Amino acid sequence: MPPDPSRPDLHVIVLAAGEGRRMRSDRPKVLQPLGGQPMLAHVLDALAPLGPAAVHVVIGAGADRVRDAFEARRPPVRWVEQAERLGTGHAVQQALPSIPAGARVLVLPGDMPLIRTESLERLVGIDAPLALLTFEPGDPTGYGRILRDDAGRPVGIREERDASARERQIGEVNSGVMLADAECLADWLGRIGNDNAQREYYLTDVVGLAVADGAAVATASCGESREALGANDRVQLAALEAALQARRRRALLDAGVSLPVPDQVQLRGRVEAGRDVVIDVGAVLEGTVVLGDGVEIGPGCVLRDCRLAAGTRVEAYSVLDGAETTGACRIGPFARLRPGTVLAAGVKIGNFVETKNAVLAEGAKASHLSYVGDAEVGAGANLGAGTITCNYDGVNKHRTVIGSDAFVGSNSALVAPVTIGDRATIGAGSTISGNAPADALTVARARQKSLPGWKRPTRKS
Amino acid sequence: MPPDPSRPDLHVIVLAAGEGRRMRSDRPKVLQPLGGQPMLAHVLDALAPLGPAAVHVVIGAGADRVRDAFEARRPPVRWVEQAERLGTGHAVQQALPSIPAGARVLVLPGDMPLIRTESLERLVGIDAPLALLTFEPGDPTGYGRILRDDAGRPVGIREERDASARERQIGEVNSGVMLADAECLADWLGRIGNDNAQREYYLTDVVGLAVADGAAVATASCGESREALGANDRVQLAALEAALQARRRRALLDAGVSLPVPDQVQLRGRVEAGRDVVIDVGAVLEGTVVLGDGVEIGPGCVLRDCRLAAGTRVEAYSVLDGAETTGACRIGPFARLRPGTVLAAGVKIGNFVETKNAVLAEGAKASHLSYVGDAEVGAGANLGAGTITCNYDGVNKHRTVIGSDAFVGSNSALVAPVTIGDRATIGAGSTISGNAPADALTVARARQKSLPGWKRPTRKS
Amino acid sequence: MPPDPSRPDLHVIVLAAGEGRRMRSDRPKVLQPLGGQPMLAHVLDALAPLGPAAVHVVIGAGADRVRDAFEARRPPVRWVEQAERLGTGHAVQQALPSIPAGARVLVLPGDMPLIRTESLERLVGIDAPLALLTFEPGDPTGYGRILRDDAGRPVGIREERDASARERQIGEVNSGVMLADAECLADWLGRIGNDNAQREYYLTDVVGLAVADGAAVATASCGESREALGANDRVQLAALEAALQARRRRALLDAGVSLPVPDQVQLRGRVEAGRDVVIDVGAVLEGTVVLGDGVEIGPGCVLRDCRLAAGTRVEAYSVLDGAETTGACRIGPFARLRPGTVLAAGVKIGNFVETKNAVLAEGAKASHLSYVGDAEVGAGANLGAGTITCNYDGVNKHRTVIGSDAFVGSNSALVAPVTIGDRATIGAGSTISGNAPADALTVARARQKSLPGWKRPTRKS
Repeated sequence: MPPDPSRPDLHVIVLAAGEGRRMRSDRPKVLQPLGGQPMLAHVLDALAPLGPAAVHVVIGAGADRVRDAFEARRPPVRWVEQAERLGTGHAVQQALPSIPAGARVLVLPGDMPLIRTESLERLVGIDAPLALLTFEPGDPTGYGRILRDDAGRPVGIREERDASARERQIGEVNSGVMLADAECLADWLGRIGNDNAQREYYLTDVVGLAVADGAAVATASCGESREALGANDRVQLAALEAALQARRRRALLDAGVSLPVPDQVQLRGRVEAGRDVVIDVGAVLEGTVVLGDGVEIGPGCVLRDCRLAAGTRVEAYSVLDGAETTGACRIGPFARLRPGTVLAAGVKIGNFVETKNAVLAEGAKASHLSYVGDAEVGAGANLGAGTITCNYDGVNKHRTVIGSDAFVGSNSALVAPVTIGDRATIGAGSTISGNAPADALTVARARQKSLPGWKRPTRKS
Repeated sequence: MPPDPSRPDLHVIVLAAGEGRRMRSDRPKVLQPLGGQPMLAHVLDALAPLGPAAVHVVIGAGADRVRDAFEARRPPVRWVEQAERLGTGHAVQQALPSIPAGARVLVLPGDMPLIRTESLERLVGIDAPLALLTFEPGDPTGYGRILRDDAGRPVGIREERDASARERQIGEVNSGVMLADAECLADWLGRIGNDNAQREYYLTDVVGLAVADGAAVATASCGESREALGANDRVQLAALEAALQARRRRALLDAGVSLPVPDQVQLRGRVEAGRDVVIDVGAVLEGTVVLGDGVEIGPGCVLRDCRLAAGTRVEAYSVLDGAETTGACRIGPFARLRPGTVLAAGVKIGNFVETKNAVLAEGAKASHLSYVGDAEVGAGANLGAGTITCNYDGVNKHRTVIGSDAFVGSNSALVAPVTIGDRATIGAGSTISGNAPADALTVARARQKSLPGWKRPTRKS
Repeated sequence: MPPDPSRPDLHVIVLAAGEGRRMRSDRPKVLQPLGGQPMLAHVLDALAPLGPAAVHVVIGAGADRVRDAFEARRPPVRWVEQAERLGTGHAVQQALPSIPAGARVLVLPGDMPLIRTESLERLVGIDAPLALLTFEPGDPTGYGRILRDDAGRPVGIREERDASARERQIGEVNSGVMLADAECLADWLGRIGNDNAQREYYLTDVVGLAVADGAAVATASCGESREALGANDRVQLAALEAALQARRRRALLDAGVSLPVPDQVQLRGRVEAGRDVVIDVGAVLEGTVVLGDGVEIGPGCVLRDCRLAAGTRVEAYSVLDGAETTGACRIGPFARLRPGTVLAAGVKIGNFVETKNAVLAEGAKASHLSYVGDAEVGAGANLGAGTITCNYDGVNKHRTVIGSDAFVGSNSALVAPVTIGDRATIGAGSTISGNAPADALTVARARQKSLPGWKRPTRKS
């Protein structure tokens, strides 16, 4: 699969054709999101470090949607369409023709998003015609139990419905992940039947054939009891989400990040954090978030694709998307930073302030109730409460340039394109539609007058 | 109780006289809220489908507040006042005079909000002079154990304080819910005493009398271990809330709603959801919330009595009350929609925007820092950042009408009553107090002038 | 330690020299925050009621930062610097010289923030040359087990690594808290060695010496299994935080406060609450928060150092810092109240409104999108949407005074210093830079004109 696979003999088949009917969703099952990504993406991410020659993904229900969702993935996966869904054995058969005879085949479900590379490595390291990945869930009910002979050799998988009371005591179960020689696998699959209630061809039936053939069947086991769990409905999906979040939070804590309330932080992407970073209760992190030393994220902040320099402090209920600070800034509460926002050291963005495509130089401030869009703000400039850059004329967006140490009085509207000079002062309440010269006071203000005899409105109705 | 009760022989007595002293509240116990409603409302809701002839509610502590809270309930309940609180047996006695002799009487506590209709159905289906609803809590400590003879017939209830070590092992306990023939019940109640530490008449004493009389005592059991739990203090109340929320979340998940973090969503009313609806972490839903297919509710949104059309997306920290979308809209983050807000397809309400009594036609936008109240906004109209409808003159509210494809420049104030014509443009920063004609530019703006010699203020003190 | 200690013979030694390397933090371990305070502060708070003659705190890693953090603490602690960190025994030795010979010495770790005064009281009440505080954690793994002879007398502490399988079964473990006669302690410490892997002098070794000397060793035990827990890494710190929060939430519930979702409320300071107070999901309370009867705090509110009068209602996502209400007010949603905000009865602060150094008299209202800073607002005054007090001229802050029953039209800017008279009306959209007389209408508004021939901008690019 990578240009230069480290295991050129290894082909992977991912079973991703399921509809997930119990999800009651229009979305194919492997596209159900987990931690901000489709389930299938987690599986592909876990596979990639194995360095296989190719990853074949068998799709069926919602095939087009699955293909579209992973179109941009590099290296690309190879799509195999399973026109009729006749069981897992049949699914694997669809992919075999494109796999060379001498290959080893790793088969795994596309809805097993917690699977870890290190468990797959253990399986892939086995040299045997057939090897199974097993695990020990807290409660084995519903899983196929691993039967072993007196010498401990696996001799079969017993499905729940066929298991005796004694066999149900077995805690080790089949994960559904299997490694097999391509030729053997093709042979076994050619011999399994569909003589069961569902009239389906079950992949697990190859185990019995292998044992009958006298082929060595080996096993490897998952390091974590939850990593082979799948999800058939929304309740199970929520359980996987909780497990994934717990794993990610644990990694952050181990790296020294302070999470005062770990259970109430959502980690939906990749977080890179420096020393003494605090992520407070209720935060939601999406995309790639990079936080420098000492960054503090207050309660309930939502960050997506942000890069915040050391010492930046984001106060409660700020929503940042595509924003960057290049020095220690103070942001929020109730700040909304949109893509293209770049803030230098000492910048302050206060409450009810929105920025978009806005570059603020060192020490610039917009502390209250402002909209700063398509703007460049000079060092030390101060935008008073209610300052609005009028960047949109109904069809085009225009830029506002504000000089360094400019002072824009409260409740001013700056009609772009417009330039406010360095050290210029704009009188409060002005609508500025022409450039304002440096070092001068510019106002656009009507004369104030009072009407002493004026009568207030009276209540109607 | 219903105009045409399906069980005309069934009378229900709800015991709702308790003060709930350990709640340390001025509110009578049955009015303590759970999932957005008083505890008693849950009990009445569970009862209603039984179709009883009447529901008699015995009130005592805070009787007036209880009556007031349920004044509007239909069909009305019948209030029975218990002047002195002399125990549950005495409470039932107060209600018996208004129940016909041939009736069957279902007695249940008013603070048992998790009770389910299906468990009550099981009890009410029993044909016996006396029947008890039992349950098996995880830990039976504190509950009256159900004693049975060798044939498994119930022969009494043993209270914790009187139970032997062996009897304390019994896991099946009395829920406090009882079904009895009205005549038998009256007879038994007339014979129970108050020879106990509290000097109270205990309803449970009728069981002993029934057994002594040789009357058949039957039992039915609750399907869920928690459904017969009550709450005597705030800790227990919080536990009931958690159980109720878990039940409601589970129902949504089973219906196919995506709740990435189920434990961190509060369901305080009725939710009706289409396919592939997402309700993200921190959401609080109150009243009746109807969500069309594919609706997405972002982190921390608060929705009360809303109806959102398919495809509507509400971003983080939006607070919606009495709002409706009739097509796919984009709302938030930080939007505040108040009652009377109706948004057509393609409408966008952005951050720090408040709407109230505002009808926005297809594709209209108010993206930033605006107040749109008592307004009608035409299709495709754009309200710039900081647009404010001045709907209030201190005593009366007036309407603002904005034509289709109108463009209102940023930081404009529209002094109602006022009409902005179709395709009109309002210059940024204008205060518009007269109607603005269609197709024209209307401005109210002072001339901009600069004072080059101007000296900035200097620091005082 | 207090001017008049109730136990003048008691000296306390707090061991606070640890670096806490596994926290991966620049902060010394005892400064890691818990419930809004450094861990060490919790320990000092638990100690204070014992009334010791002095509290000696042994510092090492980050000594200056620790000292600085507690500089203002009264009564002051006595700092003892441990230049080389050679173990707990060595640490105690550094403090002994400043403790009189006849004293009793209580030694305890500075990172044991859940320890309760009542457990320490139990230990300090013991009359014996040596006494240990023990506890029974759920899982004793890793702790030193308390060995006892057949008569139940403690005879030693067995560290995990040296414990036999049988000894590992012992559930009672050493907390690290010890009470000893100063002279005995000095003697024992002079005799312990550092013949161990770490080359450290372990305080616990004095137990063996005491037993060998035939000195009576007594024990007292903690009431709660978690109170002697420490934290070596962020995962353990988060566990302590959860335990502390659970304890504080429980105290509020027991006092009758309604917490519908206790687990999702953060209590980071001191809360004083009246009757029928509701603190809803997601609230974060910091500093000292005093809530009168019937106060309701909505979802997600952040309160720091606030005092809210009975009947005040704070709606969702309001952030209050240093604010006070003196009567029932209605605040939020999305309100931001900053220090110096004082609101009388009937005041309403609505969405996207910020106040700072603002005193609002009875019934005054600022309902939408406003900034009210350095202002005094008279009774019954109404500030329209978008009202902004321009309090800052770039260097100085000025005051705005608004008379009673004044009506400030929407989108007005009040340029301070300025006075709006009683019952004055300000026309919408005005910038007011001179005083506005009482009872009159004052406006500053440009004439509105329309340009019928005007052509809208066309799309560029």
